[in-house]
Amino acid sequence: MNFTDIAKAAKQASLQIVDTDARNRALLAVAHAIESRQDEIFEANKADLREAEGRIPQAVFNRLKLDNNKMRDMIAGIRDIAKLDDPINKKLLVRELDEGLTLYKISCPIGVLGIIFEARPDVIAQISALAIKSANAVILKGGKESANTNRTILAIINEALDKIDGFPKNAVQQVFSRGDVADMLKCDKYINLIIPRGGSSLVQYIKENTKIPVLGHADGICHIFVDESADLEMAQKIVIDAKTQYPSACNAVETLLIHEKFPHTDALLASLQLAEIKLICAPETWAFEYSDKILAWKTAAGLEEAVEHINAYGSGHTDAIITQNRSNAETFMNKVDSAGVYWNASTRFADGFRYGFGAEVGISTNKTHARGPVGLEGLTIYKYKLIGSGQIVKDYADGTKQFHHRDISSSQ
Amino acid sequence: MNFTDIAKAAKQASLQIVDTDARNRALLAVAHAIESRQDEIFEANKADLREAEGRIPQAVFNRLKLDNNKMRDMIAGIRDIAKLDDPINKKLLVRELDEGLTLYKISCPIGVLGIIFEARPDVIAQISALAIKSANAVILKGGKESANTNRTILAIINEALDKIDGFPKNAVQQVFSRGDVADMLKCDKYINLIIPRGGSSLVQYIKENTKIPVLGHADGICHIFVDESADLEMAQKIVIDAKTQYPSACNAVETLLIHEKFPHTDALLASLQLAEIKLICAPETWAFEYSDKILAWKTAAGLEEAVEHINAYGSGHTDAIITQNRSNAETFMNKVDSAGVYWNASTRFADGFRYGFGAEVGISTNKTHARGPVGLEGLTIYKYKLIGSGQIVKDYADGTKQFHHRDISSSQ
Repeated sequence: MNFTDIAKAAKQASLQIVDTDARNRALLAVAHAIESRQDEIFEANKADLREAEGRIPQAVFNRLKLDNNKMRDMIAGIRDIAKLDDPINKKLLVRELDEGLTLYKISCPIGVLGIIFEARPDVIAQISALAIKSANAVILKGGKESANTNRTILAIINEALDKIDGFPKNAVQQVFSRGDVADMLKCDKYINLIIPRGGSSLVQYIKENTKIPVLGHADGICHIFVDESADLEMAQKIVIDAKTQYPSACNAVETLLIHEKFPHTDALLASLQLAEIKLICAPETWAFEYSDKILAWKTAAGLEEAVEHINAYGSGHTDAIITQNRSNAETFMNKVDSAGVYWNASTRFADGFRYGFGAEVGISTNKTHARGPVGLEGLTIYKYKLIGSGQIVKDYADGTKQFHHRDISSSQ
Repeated sequence: MNFTDIAKAAKQASLQIVDTDARNRALLAVAHAIESRQDEIFEANKADLREAEGRIPQAVFNRLKLDNNKMRDMIAGIRDIAKLDDPINKKLLVRELDEGLTLYKISCPIGVLGIIFEARPDVIAQISALAIKSANAVILKGGKESANTNRTILAIINEALDKIDGFPKNAVQQVFSRGDVADMLKCDKYINLIIPRGGSSLVQYIKENTKIPVLGHADGICHIFVDESADLEMAQKIVIDAKTQYPSACNAVETLLIHEKFPHTDALLASLQLAEIKLICAPETWAFEYSDKILAWKTAAGLEEAVEHINAYGSGHTDAIITQNRSNAETFMNKVDSAGVYWNASTRFADGFRYGFGAEVGISTNKTHARGPVGLEGLTIYKYKLIGSGQIVKDYADGTKQFHHRDISSSQ
């Protein structure tokens, strides 16, 4: 099949929405199939590892490698998604426009998702599960290093789905070539949302080369501003956590701003160095994501300069203020134009699981649709159902009838 | 100023969010200023009309012409927007992640809106008012035919805004040339959302030529499917309303599908012709928006064929079924992939005012962010505020602490 046929088949699949129970049974069947056939997956992964060994950086090799822990987490993750509330068919609004004319705003799937991800093969199961749960169809393009693993996992997923009565064919498909990626980015006729899962350059490339909405973030240049009144111990604890707890995460801090009247700057910087953080103080480092235990820092004349710096050099991801001054905290949280604005907490909390969303699609720095950590809700949109009994607009235009717009319920 | 400077100034303005009261006072001041200086606006409009006369189609000339009714509606529209609930700073979620660590999901403006519209000069006041209410900055590009009128209205708006204490400068700006449009479409650094208000070819051009999210719709190819069990009288009434009440509206019906076993096809078609609707029955008319009293029609073998036809040839705007069969109605509303899916009601109800939104930004056929008639909510996004007392992620990662994820309130 060429890409257009694949995308068309995905679109067809996306129009066949099965009920909550069938989608959850599908997820449990997929989890069971992966669990009972994990040896095949490990074999395929070993083949990928043999081909990749010595040809890719060690960090990529480690991400490529499936072990028992990753396998267990992958299977548990699918079962967890099955347990979440159905994001589809929620009544977001029920409004009687007039006697016998009722408007329903109902959540529904977006349609066809295009997912482009790098070497981690556990992503394929997670994203397939999110798509199944939210009744979207998905076309997956993984890294070429994990082609064997991905092919095996997807075959197992589709064999499991085939056994679910009424589950649409082609809801979960996979493509492999660079040409397929180019075709995917052009395919705005059938693909409704692209989600890149990978490094900044992959995401940047995708954003530059498609008119399809892209959900995600390129850079994660997060800031912490230590205000004049900040508690030293709290500042030390939070900055060390935000930089060292997982330095390659997108929500790790990259730039530390310190109020020039903060009385403990030397003590703070010394404690960071003791925590093996390398400190750099130079303007050319202000918009760089180290993904390592390296931290750019500068002093700021005050709150206003800190906010301006963050809005100019940040990536709109997550930025924190450490202060004992409530008014400064509120100004910071209102004026910093980022998906997450924190007061006295580590930037590392920016995460769908930590926010209690149960599943995470990714973290978005978009200003439309979904922003910040995105749960299943980010894979939905809504449609309006209007149920009448023969009403026409003419009667309302000429004053024969009037709308009364009475909200019946907006619960689910 | 070149376009980049204008856009940068808009971005700066968008970061200064004034409170509800100041925004509402600004709206009332704008309404008052327009009301008291309407003679200047009529003069400018006359200049536009003199230049345009004989050089543009009569329909465009009529849209360009301001009269007392349009002026009154324009002023009343701004005052109505002032009365609406503030769409900004709503608490969409309040969740205690753990003791003393609380997450707030707060609605906020998108940032900078780029609005491109055709000849109607009343749009400039309406869109400026929507932007002021939602605390977005806006850059407007109107049709060249209405340049004098637009310039005068915008000057009056900005003089009124200048007198509002603390209201940001450059929140409402205007550009005039085609080159500015090209620059706007490229300016994804500062512009967060483009809203085209105009014909299908304008919207199509914009969608093809920008990576900035576009809110709107190109075509409005709406369908009505008359099912086997439809009531003849209801079908006549609804189809006539949907085609003739305002034929150039985007939610007017363009294609009528009739179940081949519907027993009253001849009577239905005869009544449409009596209502001066021209009927056309040919496949090449299936994806065409007449914006006139012309209706394409065909018979369908059944519900499934009708749904497939609509999903293949429709524009995802608004489609209706007329039937006495509840199960068919539900299947239709679930399977038709459109922003509005109606049962026994005219497609002409697809409108923000009729839905009770109070103000309408436009109608979107997008599958992300906002779909269907869009009210002020479509001009907002949200940010997450996290307020802690020194919490770090390490404590949760190593099991020292656990999240309890307790929703405190999701009211506003």
